[in-house]
Parts: sequence; C-alpha cells; structure tokens
Amino acid sequence: MARYKAIVEYDGTDFLGFQRQAAGRTVQAELEVALNRIGWSGKAVLGAGRTDTGVHASGQVIAFDLDWRHGEGNLLRAANANLPPDVAVKSVEACTPDFHPRFSARGRRYRYTIYNAPVRAPLVARYAWQVWPSTLNLESMQAASRQLLGQHDFAAFGADPEGGENTQRVVSLAEWSAPTTGTLLYFDIQANAFLYRMVRSLVGALKCVGTGELTVEVFGVILASRERSKCPPLAPPQGLSLIEVIY
Amino acid sequence: MARYKAIVEYDGTDFLGFQRQAAGRTVQAELEVALNRIGWSGKAVLGAGRTDTGVHASGQVIAFDLDWRHGEGNLLRAANANLPPDVAVKSVEACTPDFHPRFSARGRRYRYTIYNAPVRAPLVARYAWQVWPSTLNLESMQAASRQLLGQHDFAAFGADPEGGENTQRVVSLAEWSAPTTGTLLYFDIQANAFLYRMVRSLVGALKCVGTGELTVEVFGVILASRERSKCPPLAPPQGLSLIEVIY
Repeated sequence: MARYKAIVEYDGTDFLGFQRQAAGRTVQAELEVALNRIGWSGKAVLGAGRTDTGVHASGQVIAFDLDWRHGEGNLLRAANANLPPDVAVKSVEACTPDFHPRFSARGRRYRYTIYNAPVRAPLVARYAWQVWPSTLNLESMQAASRQLLGQHDFAAFGADPEGGENTQRVVSLAEWSAPTTGTLLYFDIQANAFLYRMVRSLVGALKCVGTGELTVEVFGVILASRERSKCPPLAPPQGLSLIEVIY
Repeated sequence: MARYKAIVEYDGTDFLGFQRQAAGRTVQAELEVALNRIGWSGKAVLGAGRTDTGVHASGQVIAFDLDWRHGEGNLLRAANANLPPDVAVKSVEACTPDFHPRFSARGRRYRYTIYNAPVRAPLVARYAWQVWPSTLNLESMQAASRQLLGQHDFAAFGADPEGGENTQRVVSLAEWSAPTTGTLLYFDIQANAFLYRMVRSLVGALKCVGTGELTVEVFGVILASRERSKCPPLAPPQGLSLIEVIY
C-alpha cells in the first residue's frame, strides 16, 4: 500500500462542487467511484480545496492510498479510463504516507475570469462572468487589489471554512491582466489559504471598483472593517478556477 | 422593411450544425424562432456557412428582413433575450437589400484547435481535439501548410458543397501557432470559400505530418492527386470554429 498524490482537472459546470454530498454529483464521488474500480477501498479521497458548485479546477490536488503494482503511467491511464469526460487526472505520483493535500499545502492559486463586453458570448460563458455596465477600469481594480497583499484579516470577504475564528490570511499575489483583445480580464490571486468564498467576494467587490461604484479607498475601508455585511454581492462561480496548490 | 446583417456566435456542441433540418436542434432554427418572436415572418434566415454538427462559430454572419422601428441596439437586445444560452447575436446593423451572407462573401476564416498533450483536459475538451502519440512537429506542419497557399484544386480534401465540379479554391492564410505553454496549437486558415469538410480534412492530414506518419512531400502529393481516397481521416468537429466572414 502506498500513498499517491494526483493533480486533477475538472469542468465544474455539472458538479455540486468538489466535496461528496449526501445527494448530487460531486467531483470527489466521481474520483472515488473510478478509484474503487481499480482496487481502491479507502474511506475518502483527500482533496486540497472544497471548490463550490460550478467552480472549475485545473490544479486540484488529491491523495489516496492504493496497492498498485503496474506503475504510475498505468495508474494514470486506469483512473482516467474510469472517469467521466468532465474530470481527468493530469498526473499521479507516489508520495510520503503523511502527505495531506490540504494540511500540507503552503499556498493556493486561483484565477477568476471576467468577460467585459456588452453582449453575452456563448464560447466563453462557461468559464467567465460577463460584466457590462461599461468598460471596467483595470487600473483602479489593480490599485485596490494591491491593498490585499500581505497579512490581513479578511473577515469582510468570507468566513473561516472550519467555523473557527481565524480569518487572517496572507496574500502573496493579487493581479489583474488583460490578454488578447481586452474583453477578457484575469484576476490571479495566491494566498496561504482562503476563507469560504473569499475569491468570489473579492471579485464581486473589485468589479464594483472597476465600474466606479466603489472607490479604491472605500475598497480599503471595507477590507479594514472586517464586516461581511459591507461586501458587495459575490461574483458567480463559473468564472473561478483553482489553478495550483503549492507545497 | 429593411435587411439586417448580424454576426452570430454559438457553441456548436449541442447543435446538428447551422442549417435547419427536418428534425434536430440547429442554430438556424433557434435564430428563426427568436426572430419570429420579435416580428420576423420570413421564409428563412440566410447564413454565410453551413457549419457541421459540433462545429462552433464566433463570426457566423446571417441576414434577415424585418420591419423594426426601435433602433439597432434594441434589436440586438431583443434577439438575444429570445435566444438560448449557446447562441448569441454579437452585433446587428442595417445593410443593403441585396446583401447575401453567403453569396456576397469574399472569404472565410476558420480556426482549428489541437490540444497536444498525453492526458485529456476537461477544461479544453469542448473546443479542441486532443492529439497524443507524441509532441507534434509544428515546423513540418507549417511547411506542409505553406503548400496550400494560392489557387489549387482541393478535391483531395473535400467536395464542392453545391455538388458541382468546381473544387478550385484560393487559400490566402494557412498558419499554425502555439501560444501559451505550447500544448494548444492553432491552425488559422482563410480562403475565398471552402469545400465540404475541407478544414477538418486538411487538419486530419496535417496532424499526420506532425506525427511523422506523412512527410511534407507526401502531403503535397496528396494535394496534387485530387483524390479524396488518399486523404487521412477527418479531424473531429469540436476543434473547429468559424471565426470571420469577409465581405
């Protein structure tokens, strides 16, 4: 029996998130069914992050214990052969028995995609939030985002997923970019860990900075307030992807 | 009554192509239903290209005659409000009564996307063809593609969609590019017009050049042969998008 670490990609559109639920389709349950078919009989596949309903991942990390004697390449192929089209294992490797995708993680990186154009676009709608009262002011959004860097109490932008009281997190990257034609905007954010719905809360507020509904200064006041009620509405899930977990 | 020209985007995954059929979901039928609801009562919405089942478009062009007195901006919004999520009108403008999206077109541009990696990727699978016996040789594929430029008889790569005998077409662009990390490959091709399944036939053959199954020279021999039976299997539809129609 050895422990394996795997990187998993999924299109979250048709999932009630990563974590197994009493009812409904989840990524964890699909992985467990697939691994069961190739001999896994554990209690649960461990995951690094509990992505919400509709949230995607290209770099979710999981771990599981398995007695497997056919090499890692065959394990990768066997797992993928048993998974549905919207989930895939990108890579798999043996790891130490004490590796835990969540507790061993030193950081997580997410990307949120905004489609900033007046008309909806069927070819990007699955993976982006269409925003249009106007062209968003990327400079203001970037200036507001700079205030997130470092250690802060992010209580205004989410709750501790454990239900504890520690809402301090350390953000090491918070950057907007606009590749291609400028209608797509990417927000890349990395932190040691995230509060529940923190990225979507931040993007919901930063979008208001982009439209002018909030100033850069008021965004900073909301952050400092630590009051959840001061935060504008959440950005929708389909723009969000878990890109990487750092160990 | 005026004629309107509109640019249409759609995710072709759940359509039996653009053109209306006796049974089955088509883009043309969805557009006709939507326009009907806002007063259109013509015989058919005209389209520039009959994309196949599963093929996408970000730049399909349509035309229709409509008596509309509320301005083009409202026409755009009214059409989109009546269309399903996988079809959208990107822009609409009045045009001359003799404009025909297909017969007035001077050229069309398509993009085909290959995902050149060993493991399937759920986040790109909808819009790309996953190819993996090996890393494709992009230089060979580019060299083979250069042979397509100019006027040729493309009978080896498709039939005249009209059932006529003219299989001469003029290709003005045929270029591979590999942005980002190199796992996505784009093939951009522009011609005055295309034979039935010409792009997918070309990509199927060019992929064989990339794997080494065909040499650049043999690709040229196939082109010169004008024999359909010499062409390797078609590339699948989901990698193909109609990007622009040129007038």
